[in-house]
Amino acid sequence: MARGSSAGYDRHITIFSPEGRLYQVEYAFKAIKTSGLTSVGVRGADSCVVLTQRKVPDKLYDPESVTNMYAITPNIGLVMTGIVPDARASVKKLREEAAKFKFNNGYDIPVSYLAKRAADTAQVYTQHANMRPLGIAMIIIGIDVEGEKKVPQLFRCDPAGYYVGYKATSAGAKEQEANNFLEKRFKPPAGSNVAVDPKLSHDDTVQLALACLQNVLGADLKANDIEACVVRHDNLAFTRLSADELETQLTALAERDDDIAGRD
Amino acid sequence: MARGSSAGYDRHITIFSPEGRLYQVEYAFKAIKTSGLTSVGVRGADSCVVLTQRKVPDKLYDPESVTNMYAITPNIGLVMTGIVPDARASVKKLREEAAKFKFNNGYDIPVSYLAKRAADTAQVYTQHANMRPLGIAMIIIGIDVEGEKKVPQLFRCDPAGYYVGYKATSAGAKEQEANNFLEKRFKPPAGSNVAVDPKLSHDDTVQLALACLQNVLGADLKANDIEACVVRHDNLAFTRLSADELETQLTALAERDDDIAGRD
Amino acid sequence: MARGSSAGYDRHITIFSPEGRLYQVEYAFKAIKTSGLTSVGVRGADSCVVLTQRKVPDKLYDPESVTNMYAITPNIGLVMTGIVPDARASVKKLREEAAKFKFNNGYDIPVSYLAKRAADTAQVYTQHANMRPLGIAMIIIGIDVEGEKKVPQLFRCDPAGYYVGYKATSAGAKEQEANNFLEKRFKPPAGSNVAVDPKLSHDDTVQLALACLQNVLGADLKANDIEACVVRHDNLAFTRLSADELETQLTALAERDDDIAGRD
Amino acid sequence: MARGSSAGYDRHITIFSPEGRLYQVEYAFKAIKTSGLTSVGVRGADSCVVLTQRKVPDKLYDPESVTNMYAITPNIGLVMTGIVPDARASVKKLREEAAKFKFNNGYDIPVSYLAKRAADTAQVYTQHANMRPLGIAMIIIGIDVEGEKKVPQLFRCDPAGYYVGYKATSAGAKEQEANNFLEKRFKPPAGSNVAVDPKLSHDDTVQLALACLQNVLGADLKANDIEACVVRHDNLAFTRLSADELETQLTALAERDDDIAGRD
Amino acid sequence: MARGSSAGYDRHITIFSPEGRLYQVEYAFKAIKTSGLTSVGVRGADSCVVLTQRKVPDKLYDPESVTNMYAITPNIGLVMTGIVPDARASVKKLREEAAKFKFNNGYDIPVSYLAKRAADTAQVYTQHANMRPLGIAMIIIGIDVEGEKKVPQLFRCDPAGYYVGYKATSAGAKEQEANNFLEKRFKPPAGSNVAVDPKLSHDDTVQLALACLQNVLGADLKANDIEACVVRHDNLAFTRLSADELETQLTALAERDDDIAGRD
Amino acid sequence: MARGSSAGYDRHITIFSPEGRLYQVEYAFKAIKTSGLTSVGVRGADSCVVLTQRKVPDKLYDPESVTNMYAITPNIGLVMTGIVPDARASVKKLREEAAKFKFNNGYDIPVSYLAKRAADTAQVYTQHANMRPLGIAMIIIGIDVEGEKKVPQLFRCDPAGYYVGYKATSAGAKEQEANNFLEKRFKPPAGSNVAVDPKLSHDDTVQLALACLQNVLGADLKANDIEACVVRHDNLAFTRLSADELETQLTALAERDDDIAGRD
Amino acid sequence: MARGSSAGYDRHITIFSPEGRLYQVEYAFKAIKTSGLTSVGVRGADSCVVLTQRKVPDKLYDPESVTNMYAITPNIGLVMTGIVPDARASVKKLREEAAKFKFNNGYDIPVSYLAKRAADTAQVYTQHANMRPLGIAMIIIGIDVEGEKKVPQLFRCDPAGYYVGYKATSAGAKEQEANNFLEKRFKPPAGSNVAVDPKLSHDDTVQLALACLQNVLGADLKANDIEACVVRHDNLAFTRLSADELETQLTALAERDDDIAGRD
Repeated sequence: MARGSSAGYDRHITIFSPEGRLYQVEYAFKAIKTSGLTSVGVRGADSCVVLTQRKVPDKLYDPESVTNMYAITPNIGLVMTGIVPDARASVKKLREEAAKFKFNNGYDIPVSYLAKRAADTAQVYTQHANMRPLGIAMIIIGIDVEGEKKVPQLFRCDPAGYYVGYKATSAGAKEQEANNFLEKRFKPPAGSNVAVDPKLSHDDTVQLALACLQNVLGADLKANDIEACVVRHDNLAFTRLSADELETQLTALAERDDDIAGRD
Repeated sequence: MARGSSAGYDRHITIFSPEGRLYQVEYAFKAIKTSGLTSVGVRGADSCVVLTQRKVPDKLYDPESVTNMYAITPNIGLVMTGIVPDARASVKKLREEAAKFKFNNGYDIPVSYLAKRAADTAQVYTQHANMRPLGIAMIIIGIDVEGEKKVPQLFRCDPAGYYVGYKATSAGAKEQEANNFLEKRFKPPAGSNVAVDPKLSHDDTVQLALACLQNVLGADLKANDIEACVVRHDNLAFTRLSADELETQLTALAERDDDIAGRD
Repeated sequence: MARGSSAGYDRHITIFSPEGRLYQVEYAFKAIKTSGLTSVGVRGADSCVVLTQRKVPDKLYDPESVTNMYAITPNIGLVMTGIVPDARASVKKLREEAAKFKFNNGYDIPVSYLAKRAADTAQVYTQHANMRPLGIAMIIIGIDVEGEKKVPQLFRCDPAGYYVGYKATSAGAKEQEANNFLEKRFKPPAGSNVAVDPKLSHDDTVQLALACLQNVLGADLKANDIEACVVRHDNLAFTRLSADELETQLTALAERDDDIAGRD
Repeated sequence: MARGSSAGYDRHITIFSPEGRLYQVEYAFKAIKTSGLTSVGVRGADSCVVLTQRKVPDKLYDPESVTNMYAITPNIGLVMTGIVPDARASVKKLREEAAKFKFNNGYDIPVSYLAKRAADTAQVYTQHANMRPLGIAMIIIGIDVEGEKKVPQLFRCDPAGYYVGYKATSAGAKEQEANNFLEKRFKPPAGSNVAVDPKLSHDDTVQLALACLQNVLGADLKANDIEACVVRHDNLAFTRLSADELETQLTALAERDDDIAGRD
Repeated sequence: MARGSSAGYDRHITIFSPEGRLYQVEYAFKAIKTSGLTSVGVRGADSCVVLTQRKVPDKLYDPESVTNMYAITPNIGLVMTGIVPDARASVKKLREEAAKFKFNNGYDIPVSYLAKRAADTAQVYTQHANMRPLGIAMIIIGIDVEGEKKVPQLFRCDPAGYYVGYKATSAGAKEQEANNFLEKRFKPPAGSNVAVDPKLSHDDTVQLALACLQNVLGADLKANDIEACVVRHDNLAFTRLSADELETQLTALAERDDDIAGRD
Repeated sequence: MARGSSAGYDRHITIFSPEGRLYQVEYAFKAIKTSGLTSVGVRGADSCVVLTQRKVPDKLYDPESVTNMYAITPNIGLVMTGIVPDARASVKKLREEAAKFKFNNGYDIPVSYLAKRAADTAQVYTQHANMRPLGIAMIIIGIDVEGEKKVPQLFRCDPAGYYVGYKATSAGAKEQEANNFLEKRFKPPAGSNVAVDPKLSHDDTVQLALACLQNVLGADLKANDIEACVVRHDNLAFTRLSADELETQLTALAERDDDIAGRD
Repeated sequence: MARGSSAGYDRHITIFSPEGRLYQVEYAFKAIKTSGLTSVGVRGADSCVVLTQRKVPDKLYDPESVTNMYAITPNIGLVMTGIVPDARASVKKLREEAAKFKFNNGYDIPVSYLAKRAADTAQVYTQHANMRPLGIAMIIIGIDVEGEKKVPQLFRCDPAGYYVGYKATSAGAKEQEANNFLEKRFKPPAGSNVAVDPKLSHDDTVQLALACLQNVLGADLKANDIEACVVRHDNLAFTRLSADELETQLTALAERDDDIAGRD
């Protein structure tokens, strides 16, 4: 975007430019990239994983307190990419939202409803005059249980208040490259425009996310440079992978040579 | 509109320009077109259909979560074209409106009243100083039941807060072309200025909508590229057409050679 | 008005220019004309009529949902000219006003009081800082019943919050021409400055309105191009004239050759 | 006032210019003159009269609904000069004020107190940031009854919130000329600076007002071009003079040749 | 003050300029002088007087309604100099304040406390963003009774919210000259910087005030050109001097030739 | 500070400049100096004194009503330097604060807590958008009693909301010079950076304050040119020194020739 | 940051610049450095220390009232660096927060939760339009007790609303240099990117903080130039180190020659 063309429309939060654009929302998207981190989320047949870089900007941080992964309920969690304080303020709101839902309805908030509420809040900030949009992208995972059925869910919600379900997605500095990588894995077969659903196993799910991140960063990942959380059919809880588990997955990834590994 | 002529009147949401124009409202109309999608709605003798492109902007989306069709009550639904988060926020408001109406009056909200409420909300955003107009156009369908009579209804509501009933209409990127196509089908006979009401059957209704979209996009539609919902006399529910049903209608359309098919 | 002379006073809703003018109110008057429609109202001895063009901007509209005539109570109605969403929002307010009056006082709101309330609301928008004036002109008709007496009433209310009773008036694109036409019919006899009250019959009332509109549009009207509503001593209800009734009146008008017919 | 010297101080409603002026209030005074009307009020020994031009701007007006005379209570009334919608909104407030006073105190609001309340409201609009001053001047008349004593009262209240009692005053387009005319009639005798109180009879009071208006307009008045209301010791009610009564007074005025008649 | 140096700091009501000045407050002081009137207050040993010009700007005024003297309680009164509507709005507030004090405490509000409350209100207008300062100066007089002791009090309160007790003071157009005149009468004896308290008798008090005003206006005062109110030990009520009383005092003043008479 | 470098950051009350400065707060500090007065406070071993110039700007003031010394509770008082109306408004708030504390806790507000509350209020004005900072500096004294212990306290609180305890301090026009003078008296012995606490007697405390003021003003003080208040171990009440007492202290000061006397 | 590039985006508190930056937040960070002080916090195996310069800007301060160390609960404290009044206002809020938590939950607020609340408050100031961000950085220490386990905690919270746990950190003028010094002590061994946790003893913890500050200031510290507070496993209370204790630690530091002492 050339500076000249915004002509002041970008300093008034809630107004349209003559082309029908909302500049502040567009700038908020840029704020997400300034974090320098890239996050990836992949939905498998019976599990979901979210993965992000753990770049401790300061060696003095207590590594345990540096995280962009947040549980909203025991079984639903998300990775936030962008302005950290905005992320934390949103986490607080979403936890309240989830608790209120449980209290009112007697059962856990569904993942899709939580994503919807996150998006509602974000949309409001784009229409009202006295607040800026939030500078964060969220990738939310969880498994909705409806009777016998367990459905892995992966949503992405952005500063515009847009949310949508994904097979796999990414956010942050290398978002474009990561999405390109993922799309190749979910490419519809020739002659079709319906993407196959590769029905990934839990290990494949995790390794695809790792492969994606490794590929776009152009360097071998180390277990300490990343953080990953999963939800699984046999363990609905939003669970952090340990460094050992990550190491094991990275080793397995290094040994395979198929499409998931990104050797294309 | 030449830029020079707005002279700053377009940065103050609620004021008139010297020519009596409300620029922010006009820009909101442009925002609808930036979505790149075109939607069509057609009202038949005993059914209504809304049709829109399903352009999954990102192959990684979970196709099931990508839709611009929303049910407001079981029997009333709409297609939203424009800024998705604005659309969803409006859907939320309209559902509350419909529920409140049912609670207060004991019967379902009529389609026309729902359209009116949608327009009321939109108008407010054009007169008050602290919010921008909504960047969406809605095409609402449903069948009002009054005693024995069942009346198919099709309304369109825009950012200015304007709503009106239609025989057929469209919204979005190719709105102008689509309306031109539709108008020819509803053209009054020579020597009259009253459009005939062609009393379309359900199949004709759906196929006319498909023909319209196919025509303005200049390409053969595939069932997966579109989404369509219908309401019918014999099934009042706002019902999504399956890919198979769409395929069947597209095949039937391809085989006919009449006015509805757009072979003119 | 030369643009240069407004010098920024026109961008602040509620302030006076050095000449004591309120520019935003003046621009709202222009917004009325941008609708492209002309409306006419005439008060007869025992009836009133409001007439406006029915320009269906889009052939696809359901003609039945396109109207600028609104009943406020069963016996009072109006024609709105200008920004349609503003019109509808005002109708909603006026209906509430009328209902509240009935509830509080036990009898129907008089026409003049309703006109006053419409003007009150409009005035507020010209004095407060956070809203724009309404871009509409209303012509309100009804028959006030006081004991035995039945008094036809015709009021016009504008964006400035000004309202006044009329013998006949018009609003919209060709307002000036229409008023000129009407004034000639109500011209005081030579040597007097008191206009005669021609005590028009119901048919004359309707035909005068039709003649006026036909004259300023410079073309023969067709019943489908106009909509008209009347209130009469023998039927107080705000009643829409059918196409047949309009056709009959137009034919009668075409055959007469007197002052009302505008053959001057 | 030279435009250059206001230097932006006139666009902020509530601030002083460096010379201690409040420009918006000054512009509101100009708005009074843009009405093109001139009003006159005269206080006699046992009566008061208010008089104003009845310029029906549009021949189509129902003359009965065109008035700038408003009764606030049965016995107190006023003539408003300036922006009509502002006038009517003020009338509404003052009637509420008067009703509240009666309800709280059990007796009618005194004229002076009503004038004070009108001024209080106007002052508030000059000090607060979110409203413009009112563009009206009011001349209020009534007769206060205190035991045996009946005191005719005439007050004038302006956009600045200033009110004061008068022997005679005027407002509007030819205010300055009218005041000059009146002053000559109330001129103190040579060698004194205390104006004589001429103890005008009711007829003299009315004829002085008529003479004043006739003089500044430079044309013979016709009964239909003016409206006049009076309050009298023997009829406290705020009463409109009929066309016949006005004609009688105009004839009497034409026949006299004294100071009141303005033959100077 | 050079215009250039205010550089916009004077258009924001509540901000400091880089020199620590509050321009709007300074302009409010100028507004006091634009009234063209000068007021004087003098405190004697057992009485106080306030005196101001009665300049009836318009010969048509009812002289009885033109006053700048206001009683706040029966025993406390003040003279207001500046913008009249601001003055009256303040009087209203102060009367409420005094009534509330009496109601809460069971005894009359002391003069000093009333002055303090007047100043509090004025200060608030200098610190908040949404109101302008008041354009008035008040000189308040009254006699506080504490047991046996009766203490004449004279306070002056200005737009900045500053109030202080005075032996004598003035306000308005010729404030500076009047203060110079008064200071000479209260000059400390040579070699001391403590002003003597001349323990003026009631007549001396009144005549000093008259002398002061006569001196700065450079013309002999007439009883009708001034208004004066007093409070006295033997009559605590805030009492207006009649024209006769004023005439007597003016005559006495004309005959004396001492320091009070201003023959210096 | 060069004007150019503020570049508009100084007109928005609550924003940081790019250098992290809050200009409005800095300008408020300048407002303190524009008062032209200098105040001094000194804390001795068993007493505190506050001293300020009594510059009666107008010979006509009632000297008794001119003071910058205010008691907040019987035992705590302060001297205000800067904009007088701001000072008085703050005194009102602090008295309420003190009364509320006593009511809630049953014992007197400690001096340090009162200083903290004064600072809290001031800080709020620096962070919110709709008020300016206060243009005053306060020097607060009092003696806190904790069981047997009596602790003299001296605090200074400024427009930024900063408060701190002092051994001695000053405020106003000659603040810098006064602080320099005082610092020499509290200078740590050579080779130490801990200031000695000279354990001043009551007389030394008062005389040091007098010496300081005399020194920076460059002229012999007269008892009538200053006002001083003290609190002492043997009289906790905030007590004003009489002119006689001040004279005595000034004489004693003139006779001594030590460090306190400022003969350096 | 070049001035030119901010182009006005830095004067609107809550908006993003086109690069996605929030300038006011960035300026608030600069405000922290303008304090001229540097603070250090170190977390040991069983203790935490916070250390800051005690620069008494004015020799006249009562040194006891100059501190940047604040206890929030008996066992949690923090050092504030930046704008002192902002610091104190925050301390007040946090104490209320802690008290409310204790009241609601019956046990002490955990250190991490308190840090979170501090960050929440700060984030709000970055998103809302009517307040500026806080100009402070906080280093919070405390020991959380969970059953048998005692966990030393050290958090840092900044104007952006960002908070994170640290092994050691610093804030203020020489923050960058201090962090560099500390990082070397927590450097991961060659070939690892996981920092060792040196499990510092209490004495080592204090001496490392002292060494850091001494190093970046380039001068030997004196006990009176610094203030330090500690929490320890065997004394959970937030305790200030006495001058003697500090002296002892400084002496011990001077005698060691290892990595902690900074002889590198």
